[in-house]
Amino acid sequence: MPRIVTLTSDFGVEDHYVSVMKAVVLEKAPLNTRLVDISHAIPPNDIMAGAWVVREAARYFPEDTIHVVVVDPGVGTDRDPVLIRSHNQWFIGPDNGLFSLISQDAGYEAWRLNNPRYWLEELSSTFHGRDLFAPVAAHLASGVAPNKLGSPDHTLMTWRWPEPILDKDGVRGWIAHIDHFGNLITNIPSVVRKEFPSDPNTRIKIYVGNTILEKIDSTFGDVESGEAVMFPGSSNMLEIAVNKGNASELLGVPKGSEVTIVFQKSSIDS
Amino acid sequence: MPRIVTLTSDFGVEDHYVSVMKAVVLEKAPLNTRLVDISHAIPPNDIMAGAWVVREAARYFPEDTIHVVVVDPGVGTDRDPVLIRSHNQWFIGPDNGLFSLISQDAGYEAWRLNNPRYWLEELSSTFHGRDLFAPVAAHLASGVAPNKLGSPDHTLMTWRWPEPILDKDGVRGWIAHIDHFGNLITNIPSVVRKEFPSDPNTRIKIYVGNTILEKIDSTFGDVESGEAVMFPGSSNMLEIAVNKGNASELLGVPKGSEVTIVFQKSSIDS
Amino acid sequence: MPRIVTLTSDFGVEDHYVSVMKAVVLEKAPLNTRLVDISHAIPPNDIMAGAWVVREAARYFPEDTIHVVVVDPGVGTDRDPVLIRSHNQWFIGPDNGLFSLISQDAGYEAWRLNNPRYWLEELSSTFHGRDLFAPVAAHLASGVAPNKLGSPDHTLMTWRWPEPILDKDGVRGWIAHIDHFGNLITNIPSVVRKEFPSDPNTRIKIYVGNTILEKIDSTFGDVESGEAVMFPGSSNMLEIAVNKGNASELLGVPKGSEVTIVFQKSSIDS
Repeated sequence: MPRIVTLTSDFGVEDHYVSVMKAVVLEKAPLNTRLVDISHAIPPNDIMAGAWVVREAARYFPEDTIHVVVVDPGVGTDRDPVLIRSHNQWFIGPDNGLFSLISQDAGYEAWRLNNPRYWLEELSSTFHGRDLFAPVAAHLASGVAPNKLGSPDHTLMTWRWPEPILDKDGVRGWIAHIDHFGNLITNIPSVVRKEFPSDPNTRIKIYVGNTILEKIDSTFGDVESGEAVMFPGSSNMLEIAVNKGNASELLGVPKGSEVTIVFQKSSIDS
Repeated sequence: MPRIVTLTSDFGVEDHYVSVMKAVVLEKAPLNTRLVDISHAIPPNDIMAGAWVVREAARYFPEDTIHVVVVDPGVGTDRDPVLIRSHNQWFIGPDNGLFSLISQDAGYEAWRLNNPRYWLEELSSTFHGRDLFAPVAAHLASGVAPNKLGSPDHTLMTWRWPEPILDKDGVRGWIAHIDHFGNLITNIPSVVRKEFPSDPNTRIKIYVGNTILEKIDSTFGDVESGEAVMFPGSSNMLEIAVNKGNASELLGVPKGSEVTIVFQKSSIDS
Repeated sequence: MPRIVTLTSDFGVEDHYVSVMKAVVLEKAPLNTRLVDISHAIPPNDIMAGAWVVREAARYFPEDTIHVVVVDPGVGTDRDPVLIRSHNQWFIGPDNGLFSLISQDAGYEAWRLNNPRYWLEELSSTFHGRDLFAPVAAHLASGVAPNKLGSPDHTLMTWRWPEPILDKDGVRGWIAHIDHFGNLITNIPSVVRKEFPSDPNTRIKIYVGNTILEKIDSTFGDVESGEAVMFPGSSNMLEIAVNKGNASELLGVPKGSEVTIVFQKSSIDS
């Protein structure tokens, strides 16, 4: 079975940066290693955007995939390079919170990458993707044991995203990600709907920006072109879109905005 | 011979969407399957732009290449997923007009993809690229017969682009595509020149936006920097460019604009 | 050992152009050939930007990698297609200055590509990437000798970038490249620091745009967020960044701007 090595970064695709990481992996990894780009358009230094994209992608990759993730504003300072085993896959990158979402979903093991024998000979102070993370990924793909690459140390820097709040009056969450289509992906898991009041007289109102929706549909094609809709998205989160439009632009709702679902007895509702 | 699976979409490259389609293909397809991106920058929901790019790309891919094409504004509603055999290659995507150009150029066979056995276990209502089209491509690459993947049904939703009109006075066409350089690609096949009047006294005038050209050259380098030029383009269509400039911006000509070539007796021409 | 074929161009990724070059390579090259994109976002017709990116990338690719580089404003006119052997790697593209930086760093051999037997049957006048450079790369990967592909002719069109000037008063250079992060990469090699006055009383002032810096640090994380910093970059050139910001935008410094490092006796400095 060939190993898959994925690459995620905030490097963009204009420069040579991504290609030299690939060159380093290809030179050292087994011949049947496969490279897959996840995204190189993480907004510069946006650690949580990187954490999101890698978590969302990883669940579809096969066991033992190696994910190299480089959003690294502290490169060359005292943050540690780290190797993580979680969800039966491998994650390599700086220990700066990038793996907060992966590690909170399941158990994990971690190693500080402190063995320069598995890096490029010269370690620059600004491009560890090339000099450290790519070669470590290649050596891991070649079968080098984690304990040779670094020292076990299972503490990780983690950032916590606020969890959505569910009570008898409703749910309060926020927009965790806006995708290429302008779809607003909330941090409210789609399964939360099971906790909604079962009373058939209860209706819901969904508040986002200045827009109010009155139900959860199943896809954006359920409403007319240009209309807003909430539906269970492909990331298993509730999502808000405008059919054939860009919801973020049309509704004027940026990332981080609040989303509220309010339960209402329909007798009160006019 | 390894199979090639190409991917075309309006997903952009910021999100994890394209990479999870690749993960699904790689997990299920034969080990020597090769993935090639055609474009993920189709303008959101622009079905005919997708149709154009895939038709243009496909003619250079080897026999039996599998093209997965996802521009799918109706995902989760009642449009059908479809598999097409045309030009000795395979095409997989929603039956919403995406295959209009491929299917009008040559014969084809089509199958409705209605066998969930070859999909991911859970079919989301918004991401059939991942849940249906990618796994079907992988199974096809593995040798599963089209008749197992779906039912033969050779009707296809097709959109017709207006054909260029050629008569004794000239040709009237339009700008079918504007490429990365701002080059204006018309829907007028380059071979149309063979139908031009053979009378050596006939001259032509080419009208596009507010610009008038007086001949067809062979490449944009035939004119000075900054000058507009019409030439037979690499897609076998007549094309208008500005040497070392962006014709669409400099001439102010958007996609869909009319282009007219008028034949003139040179005795009349001043 | 599989061959690596890299692709660099100003084609962008919206159109089918890059994918058909890959199709042509894959059809003719050995099955284990690997394709790696370096960049397709070279600014249209910016030959020196292409020269820069390829030079920077190539030093990390293994011996015998084949680099196809297409920034080709003169396609279809009288510029020659060329094959170059340098740094133990191969370079294929138009002889228009694209290989100026590669060829000035080390010895090289060159061949005019004048044997149509190794091209596509029909040579368009505007897309030699597809019709000539990609097939030549595939044949080279298959073991065809350079002397069959063309005729030895070791003159190359070269553009010379001004070299930085170092004298007893300081160094004068310029911004040769601005990367995705907005980092300003100068043409001043980092090793130049060894030539700086060894007198411990000498201090330096670095002038770029309206900004003055007073030392060279080791990474951008050495200064506070929002502050500018000069450091030895990952390309072995001195580089100017703003920690967690876009230096080009924040300092208002475009590509081509002058950078001056002035040596000052600290007794004079106030």
